[in-house]
Formats: sequence, structure tokens, C-alpha cells
Amino acid sequence: MSVSNKLILITNDDGIGAKGIKKLIDVAMQLGEVIVVAPASPMSGMSHAISVKDELGIATYQNGYNISQYICFGTPVDCIKIATTKILKRNPDIILSGINHGLNSAASVFYSGTMAAALEGALKGIPSIAFSLDDFSPDADFELSGKIAEKIITDIINNGLPEGIALNVNIPVTSFDKLNGIKIARQAKGYWQEKFIESKEDNEVKYYSVEGEFINLEPDATDTDEWAIKNNYVSVVPVPVDLTSYVYFNELKKRAIFNGKTF
Amino acid sequence: MSVSNKLILITNDDGIGAKGIKKLIDVAMQLGEVIVVAPASPMSGMSHAISVKDELGIATYQNGYNISQYICFGTPVDCIKIATTKILKRNPDIILSGINHGLNSAASVFYSGTMAAALEGALKGIPSIAFSLDDFSPDADFELSGKIAEKIITDIINNGLPEGIALNVNIPVTSFDKLNGIKIARQAKGYWQEKFIESKEDNEVKYYSVEGEFINLEPDATDTDEWAIKNNYVSVVPVPVDLTSYVYFNELKKRAIFNGKTF
Repeated sequence: MSVSNKLILITNDDGIGAKGIKKLIDVAMQLGEVIVVAPASPMSGMSHAISVKDELGIATYQNGYNISQYICFGTPVDCIKIATTKILKRNPDIILSGINHGLNSAASVFYSGTMAAALEGALKGIPSIAFSLDDFSPDADFELSGKIAEKIITDIINNGLPEGIALNVNIPVTSFDKLNGIKIARQAKGYWQEKFIESKEDNEVKYYSVEGEFINLEPDATDTDEWAIKNNYVSVVPVPVDLTSYVYFNELKKRAIFNGKTF
Repeated sequence: MSVSNKLILITNDDGIGAKGIKKLIDVAMQLGEVIVVAPASPMSGMSHAISVKDELGIATYQNGYNISQYICFGTPVDCIKIATTKILKRNPDIILSGINHGLNSAASVFYSGTMAAALEGALKGIPSIAFSLDDFSPDADFELSGKIAEKIITDIINNGLPEGIALNVNIPVTSFDKLNGIKIARQAKGYWQEKFIESKEDNEVKYYSVEGEFINLEPDATDTDEWAIKNNYVSVVPVPVDLTSYVYFNELKKRAIFNGKTF
């Protein structure tokens, strides 16, 4: 099936059986040699968590595709670690994560296992892309997402990515005709505001269910990922593996306490 | 015990019973009103994970301190979320996370639950600091760390932090006399290289234990957190909640595929 000698590693955080990863496999099989290492069960909200306490289990997986697939009984980041260290003979040329059932725009970049897998790839110097669709449902329609993914993956295979950068791609629910295009955007300023609802009390432990709502602190800004998605653009945020804030670096350096001298 | 009306929220990722959080409580009780909401059990390597699938349990906790303490049966980020949303009547003036048993410098910023708790605070607009000591042992000596924490917390209470920035503070194992000072540093470039060792095979699942080693890609650079710690400085990396990489933003924008037009 391969049309190039590119080695493409695929993972996700919804689990190896999710519809979104199947679309990504379909697309990638047209572009190179594909290997899948993905979680056995849904790992949404696992962020960059790793299995430090437990042993990590791996098994082969078959579902009709004529490619190597592995189930990993761990997190998305565990998948990237064991794939690049133990399963693959050489580093993949590109890592694809998703397609996630649900957006990972704005502050969700922190909670997303989909994005964390891409960042783990970037930490190891591998061009990596996370894809997410604005539809949580298990049977979401990934047709448009597949077309977008193919275009972006092809561009990155041909033109590369700056070192230490992973792409956070978020796709609106729309038709190909109504899509306005693909836009580099910045992470919208905002946060998830939770509401905890007490459900029961048992043995002096109070249990709460949680609902969350994203608070966009700059709904009028037109250069954010949130704006792009709401206006039928695919948003692409470049996310660095260097998490130093250089904006306030020199300002903070000037404070007496941080001047590096004995006090 | 309080010497100011500052409200100080404390959490960690080693669990509420760890020695490191007790030192942070001791220090903070001299600086304001303290409330503790911390995980029931060790949560190292949980990063920014949240309990999305399960209900979150909370119980009060007593260990001799005359302050409000809560055990949270979730992750460090869960602790910040339920503390700021459900437990506290108003936002804390400052959030302290740690003192972690073990460094969270360089790429460890991605895996650290200690740092994630601070970033969750910063997302909600609260000045937040993560403290970590270069000693994994449960009975590590936190005397120097306590003195450092007091100085940094006092400075941040008095002078604030830029919005959207959390501090990642890493402390070397040394004496107060030999410490060279506190330094604003940047995250060293590097990654964790794992070694997976097969331990058993059971029902077609292969199990692996894992060992990791940090690969510092710039061991000679003198402005990194890794260099600072190795040279008896406390390193302080400002970490942003805006994870957009602005360095390559305009470069990527120029690519035809990302120009925002219909294709």
C-alpha cells in the first residue's frame, strides 16, 4: 500500500478502536509505511502522564488492516515512548496523533493526551502532529478531517517542521465547500471553569461529579484558534517543547532575589 | 499563626503525607492563612491529567496542623480545580505546589504533577509556584528548600508575577553556605531516553519495566536550569500558560497550505 519509504507512527488518546484513528490510518497508508501503537482504552484527559509505577503491557492487534498494530496498556505518551524505544527499529519520519473525538484547542492543550503524544514526539526530534475534530460522538464524521489531515501531513513530509515544534490541528464540523481554509493561529486565552456537584457521601468521603465550561477571555480576537474554528477555519497552533516564557525572562531576571548572587 | 491576610493554597504530587509538603506548610503558615488540598496517594508522573471519567472524592484530613486540610482522591490538577471551585470561598492569593521529592527541571516539566498544579493555578489567573528538590528519598532534607521557598514566596506575595506565568523552582542538594544563589534560567534542551526491559509474557501481553535517563542536548550551556542546579544555584524557569510558539509563527504562516484561503 505504501507510496513512499516514509515511516509513519500513529497513536491517539481515544483508544485503538476509535473511529478517528481509523481515518488517520486510511490517510497515512496512502503516504508511507504505517505502524500503530495506541492505548487499549480511552485515555482522554491523561495529558502527558506516564506509567511510572506499573509495568507497561503491549500486545499485537489485528483489525483487518495489513499493517503492524500494537495495543499499549498505558497512556498516549507511553505509546510514543515504547514505540520509538522498543518496537520500531528506527525513529519514524513523522508521528500522527488522533484524530481526536472532540476539540483540543485553547487551554485544552494542557489536558489532551492527543497533544501530549505529539509533544513527546517533538521532544525526541520527530515531526509530530495532533489532529482533533469538534465532535465528541463515537460515530463522528471524519471525512473532512481525513482530507485536511492528508494535506497537512503531505506538507510536513515535504517541507518538515522547525525542530522542537509540534502542531495542534483542530478541525471544525463543516463541509469541504464551506471550509474557509487552514490557518496558523495562537492559543486563545482562557480556562476551563468547573462545576462540582455533590453526588454522595460514603465513609466521610464526599463524591462529586464535574461539568466544565471553557471561558474564552478574548472572544473578539480574530487570530486565535477558538475564533478560527468558530469561523469555519482549521486552526493550527505551533506548540514548543521549550516551555520557557521568554517574554518575561529579562523582567524577572532584574528582580534582586533572582540575580544569582548569595543572599 | 497567620501574619498576613493572604490566602495560600498548597498542593503537591507526592501525596498529602509526604515530607516535602509539610515543609511548605511550615513556611507558608508564617506568611498567611494556609489551606491544603492534596492527593491521597503519590501522583508523580501524572502531568496535567484530570479525573474526567470518575467521580472525585474529597475528605477532611488532620495531622496536627491547626489549618484546613483536605485529601483529594484525584490528581494534583483535580486538587486545584476542586479547591478553587468548591472548597475555597474566594481565589487564593497564591498557590504553592511541592516541595517535590525529585527534580522537575528540563523536559520533566511535561511529566510533573507538581508543575501541572502550578500551571492550572496560572490558567485561573492565580500566581503559582512549583518547588522541587533534587532528592527522591522519602526522608530528604528540606531545610535549605524551606529557606529558599520562604524567600521566593515572600517576593512573589510582595511583587506579584506576570499574568499567565507559573514558576518552576528546582533546588540543588547543598548547604546554605555553599549555595550560589537563585537564578532565572531557561529549560535545558533534552529528553528522557527510556529503556524497556521485558519482564514477563501473560496471555499474549508482553510486560515491560522501564528505566529512564535524561539526555541533556546542551550540557555546556550556562543559562539552563540543568546547569544552574549542577552548579549549586536554585533554578527558576518562568513557564507560560500560552503554549503558542511565536518563534516560528510567522515562518509557518507563510506556507501556502496555512494561508487561510480555500484550496
